[in-house]
Amino acid sequence: MSVAKAEAGKTRIGWIGTGVMGRWMCQHAMAKGFAATVFTRTKEKAQPLLDLGAAYADSPKAVAERSDVIFAIVGYPKDVREVFLGTDGALAGSKPGTILVDMTTSEPSLAVEIAATAKKKGVHALDAPVSGGDVGAKNAALSIMIGGEKDVVDAVAPLFEAMGKTVIHQGGSGAGQHTKMVNQILISSTMVAMCEGLLYAFKSGLDLETVLKSVSVGAAGSKSLDIYGARLLQRNFEPGFYVEHFIKDMGIALAEAEKMNLFLPGLALAKQLYEAVRAQGMGRKGTQSLLLAMEAISGVKR
Amino acid sequence: MSVAKAEAGKTRIGWIGTGVMGRWMCQHAMAKGFAATVFTRTKEKAQPLLDLGAAYADSPKAVAERSDVIFAIVGYPKDVREVFLGTDGALAGSKPGTILVDMTTSEPSLAVEIAATAKKKGVHALDAPVSGGDVGAKNAALSIMIGGEKDVVDAVAPLFEAMGKTVIHQGGSGAGQHTKMVNQILISSTMVAMCEGLLYAFKSGLDLETVLKSVSVGAAGSKSLDIYGARLLQRNFEPGFYVEHFIKDMGIALAEAEKMNLFLPGLALAKQLYEAVRAQGMGRKGTQSLLLAMEAISGVKR
Repeated sequence: MSVAKAEAGKTRIGWIGTGVMGRWMCQHAMAKGFAATVFTRTKEKAQPLLDLGAAYADSPKAVAERSDVIFAIVGYPKDVREVFLGTDGALAGSKPGTILVDMTTSEPSLAVEIAATAKKKGVHALDAPVSGGDVGAKNAALSIMIGGEKDVVDAVAPLFEAMGKTVIHQGGSGAGQHTKMVNQILISSTMVAMCEGLLYAFKSGLDLETVLKSVSVGAAGSKSLDIYGARLLQRNFEPGFYVEHFIKDMGIALAEAEKMNLFLPGLALAKQLYEAVRAQGMGRKGTQSLLLAMEAISGVKR
Repeated sequence: MSVAKAEAGKTRIGWIGTGVMGRWMCQHAMAKGFAATVFTRTKEKAQPLLDLGAAYADSPKAVAERSDVIFAIVGYPKDVREVFLGTDGALAGSKPGTILVDMTTSEPSLAVEIAATAKKKGVHALDAPVSGGDVGAKNAALSIMIGGEKDVVDAVAPLFEAMGKTVIHQGGSGAGQHTKMVNQILISSTMVAMCEGLLYAFKSGLDLETVLKSVSVGAAGSKSLDIYGARLLQRNFEPGFYVEHFIKDMGIALAEAEKMNLFLPGLALAKQLYEAVRAQGMGRKGTQSLLLAMEAISGVKR
């Protein structure tokens, strides 16, 4: 099978979900000369893209009818299922040769199901979740982890490269999602490490800023500490990444681990701690809010 | 109080414990022109330093009798207590104005006790544990975290700067040890994160090297992954840092946390997992052996 490479000025893209991530990702593709049709649940969120010349369609199906490659980045696996496989979903509007790309962090098994269902119609599908957050999306610096057939990945490469700096084909359908799960597993216990370290530092009477100078340079360093250390010193808990989305990701990873008969106690603990963060009303705060929840549990007043 | 700054060719240093770390640290000080007298439990381990012109003394007390600043880097808190406060310890051989520096990772409360006991004799004491491992020691690139009085820290600065790249005064007695505990708390759950991530990656059928390319660049990155990722791909479990020493450090941190009434479940879990590593006979392997223990628990065969 050979799939035509996406080409600016020729390949028409569709975009479903123009939130804090999707809006920038679509914009970067448009900046490379790809015409876009967009759909999003809250139409006002699409306005910046419409202002740049994107067309609007009333459903994922309608997007697909006017597009060659359709991307989605939405919230939860149920949303992914609906926008791809639903009655008004993108697959319903696809013709043979269309390519569907899910960039949501979602279930590996759903990625496999979408690809298999699409294949029956001669439609291709990739799973391509990303890491890098809103800042990575804005700066076209995302890490994109891709599952699917190699020639389809190659065909979409010019579009991925418009959005990300690290574009890597990880294997067959679901491999992108599995890689993203690895990413989230790594982050989960590292966030626990960071919050426990800062909590101990505060309670033992150390100066947090001075401590960070000592510990961030050596073996204890992490991207979490780089990203959130300074924000936590300023007591800034605003979202870069929502607690409730992180809980969703960890839930998927734990469910996959259970299917694979894998013992991941650090992940299970991290998810439980984040349940406490959400229970304390911080589901829509940033993931660094774990520190606040753990301070509350230990009765630490700041 | 003013304390004379250490000066090459004039200030005589003493060194207790010339193992994988201490040997290099003492050598770097000698290379700056400081004459050294050393003591170590296994005399052969001191030979490289004796070959470079160091004198040997038969006890920490005898070391102190011939030195102005006495460093120790030994194994456990009980060893620290013995070499500083024992009948044949360094304090017994110290005169007023002598400076004692413990660079072992040890108990914050013991650091406070040594400093208070020393003070009664007009002797100064610092706690100055390090991060960076044998490689950091060899390359004089350690992070040195110091607790004690500022003028004493300033007096010893030329010696610290011979051994380390990041030399930071963290506060009064015990603050160096508390900072090192923060460092070890950060590492503990980050190691759990890394091993769980790699275990998931392997079990889900991904190619580990390709996965690392995607996840090490973004928010999931850590120094642990930088240091151990490649070694784990090669199934290299040789020690950079011993499991049994890490267990000691986590034990100290947990005991301090309990005294402070602090909830640190990630640290507690990490220590338990490392107990499993030791129970599986890997106490003298490197801390990356956690992966092996977790593979065994999940019945993963490599």
